[in-house]
Amino acid sequence: MATISKKRQLGRQVSIVGGGLSQFGAFPEKDTRDLFVEAFQDMVQNMDRGFDIEDIECAYVGNYSSDLFEHQGHTAPIVADWLGITPIPITRIENACASSGSALREGVMAIASGMYDVVLVGGMEKMTNLPTDGVTDVLASAADGLYEVPAGLTFPGIFGAIAKAHMDKYETNLDHLLKVAIKNHSNGALNSKAQFQQTVTEMMERRISRAQERGQEVPDYKTDMDFLNDPRANPWIAWPLRLYDCAPITDGASCVLLVSKEIAHNFADTPIDIAGIGQATGKPLHDSDELTSLSAAKAASQQAYDMAGITVADIDLAEVHDCFTIAEIVATEDLGFFAPGEGPRAVDEGRTARDGDHPINTSGGLKAKGHPVGASGVGQVIEIYKQLRGEAGERQVKKADPTVGVTHNVGGTGGTCVVNVLRRES
Amino acid sequence: MATISKKRQLGRQVSIVGGGLSQFGAFPEKDTRDLFVEAFQDMVQNMDRGFDIEDIECAYVGNYSSDLFEHQGHTAPIVADWLGITPIPITRIENACASSGSALREGVMAIASGMYDVVLVGGMEKMTNLPTDGVTDVLASAADGLYEVPAGLTFPGIFGAIAKAHMDKYETNLDHLLKVAIKNHSNGALNSKAQFQQTVTEMMERRISRAQERGQEVPDYKTDMDFLNDPRANPWIAWPLRLYDCAPITDGASCVLLVSKEIAHNFADTPIDIAGIGQATGKPLHDSDELTSLSAAKAASQQAYDMAGITVADIDLAEVHDCFTIAEIVATEDLGFFAPGEGPRAVDEGRTARDGDHPINTSGGLKAKGHPVGASGVGQVIEIYKQLRGEAGERQVKKADPTVGVTHNVGGTGGTCVVNVLRRES
Repeated sequence: MATISKKRQLGRQVSIVGGGLSQFGAFPEKDTRDLFVEAFQDMVQNMDRGFDIEDIECAYVGNYSSDLFEHQGHTAPIVADWLGITPIPITRIENACASSGSALREGVMAIASGMYDVVLVGGMEKMTNLPTDGVTDVLASAADGLYEVPAGLTFPGIFGAIAKAHMDKYETNLDHLLKVAIKNHSNGALNSKAQFQQTVTEMMERRISRAQERGQEVPDYKTDMDFLNDPRANPWIAWPLRLYDCAPITDGASCVLLVSKEIAHNFADTPIDIAGIGQATGKPLHDSDELTSLSAAKAASQQAYDMAGITVADIDLAEVHDCFTIAEIVATEDLGFFAPGEGPRAVDEGRTARDGDHPINTSGGLKAKGHPVGASGVGQVIEIYKQLRGEAGERQVKKADPTVGVTHNVGGTGGTCVVNVLRRES
Repeated sequence: MATISKKRQLGRQVSIVGGGLSQFGAFPEKDTRDLFVEAFQDMVQNMDRGFDIEDIECAYVGNYSSDLFEHQGHTAPIVADWLGITPIPITRIENACASSGSALREGVMAIASGMYDVVLVGGMEKMTNLPTDGVTDVLASAADGLYEVPAGLTFPGIFGAIAKAHMDKYETNLDHLLKVAIKNHSNGALNSKAQFQQTVTEMMERRISRAQERGQEVPDYKTDMDFLNDPRANPWIAWPLRLYDCAPITDGASCVLLVSKEIAHNFADTPIDIAGIGQATGKPLHDSDELTSLSAAKAASQQAYDMAGITVADIDLAEVHDCFTIAEIVATEDLGFFAPGEGPRAVDEGRTARDGDHPINTSGGLKAKGHPVGASGVGQVIEIYKQLRGEAGERQVKKADPTVGVTHNVGGTGGTCVVNVLRRES
């Protein structure tokens, strides 16, 4: 397609000057609006300089389906009222699990258009009020309701099929998948906002000590892999995926403050520029050419890299859309970090760990941090924002002076993919 | 608020070079994707010059709730696949019944940002597959689910309350409301895409002739008002609103092609410029200061007029959001066409008719053309596009050479309002 590879440039550059997350987890007492306000307060408390809420001129919220989760449509003005930012315009963006990734893109273009200088972009999802099968049903509605859902496809089934295809085509095995989970839980253990703040080893030890306390048979686990290969601890969900291959069901919200680059230093000592944005659309799974790669991810990343004027070699770290462990492996190949089929070996060799040459999902990823679907795209951006500012604490990447980070946010089975390149001024 | 009144300008000007509508009505055999393709084909067939689908670089679709109407989320990529425009980015915009109004604004900013030159913007809703009470429930979810819906509010109830407040505050009466319906049906009778293509007189005559055919008591109607005051023909829905005060439940889709102004003549002999765009957010009804005016409509229109550099005196015609007859009256006051409380008298005096000084809803409005909620905002734009190009046929406004038209699209109870100023090059 001629159009997608066309070199695209923004009329004005855009920077991120703040970011905030609600706690990720299950919060029966909280509504979507409460979660968003919590994320907003977190952002305001962590901004480098003074900030007046009346500076905000326009807002976007990514949300997959407050309609089905809470029977609440038209969520955007409710959030605006709760924040106290009426009458500024606010718009809800929906592209399934890439909703806030797409929302960020709208915020960037709103500033680049010349209309606004200061735009709030966030995302939110309140999922845990439905039972698990209800959530699975709502998420399945992001697949094609005419051609896929009636055939029995759910998202674990879809990504199970992707994993099987990857195993058939390359030398991928079940251990590769579980090693992604081990890595991401080890990162999530260092993230105070994460839904799961324990390593797999800690979870294994907890299971052993519980068995001892209860006088039950004590499992004979020697390693994380022993634990993860025990079907009582890690049951099959949709072969070859097990419980620990799946991101959890999560309530949460995220937001960032975008400003025109020329005023960024009024808000932040170390603004982070949005150097490239890319979004592309893939065919539904039933109509896709292949299962082991998402065409939209490849197109979106190429667009974002071109806009930023970078190559893969320039990228210091990435947050990718690990809704399932196999999705992280496929993402690292689609983004060009590793050749097709080489993603699993890179996991084996520790290249995607915090001290590797391609650190992936230092936040814990969707897998351990949690996946409140509408919030995840902006949540990824916040992790890169913190890492590039050297503020990620114990989970700060080991490489000195990281400058360029990438986010990769997928909606559905690759129907939408949004890739951003973030860069710290050198 | 300092922010909302700030003068805003786009970095690049944007023009409309094509527009298309599906048939509006009830189509049990059609899905959302089918409706959108029908609108797209209508647009392509009516374009002035050659058009290649590969020219489209980016797309937006407004949709209120395919989630609740069809249990289909992530509708945007499905539409893209059906149109054959993957891999270009497509994003769903949701702001209740202002969804495609907001989508248009995103399309305008996407071009103004410098990212794209050619953007497709549309809207769609498939509503009639649910029973009427189901549709009422889905629409009610655009109100506040914590504070309003549990109190029993539905949209007919909400706009009934607005009508009652207007009647209490001003000299508005039930006849004023019905005269809006009579006017809009007389316009819709001339619109081949409309759901209702009959005048109220024709509907009255049909009722009389049916009674005669069936040997039933023949109603003694002398005028449209006799007919509309018969509760068997026009039953109460939510006092003071009756059936003919309410827009119908509709399946339909709409789309326009936006391009950067400098290339507009490559696509159209008579492009129509988007001279001003405004969007504002109102508090939920339970938290509003007054019922007889929508604060978001006033703020959005002021923003759009300022951007276009016009005053009310420059406006030749308007399409306003007449989801209920009272909503049209309030809209004409909020837009500044008439002073508060003067809207009803203007209807009485025929000032809002096709040959009046402020023609309103020449398309038939939501009332007669139909209201597929996510499609309505762009549907309004298409009517102004046709009128300013002199292509509205029998329903063309009487004033010579109309140059400036306005659209007014409301989401929920005024939680969102989008106002556009369209202008033909003179």
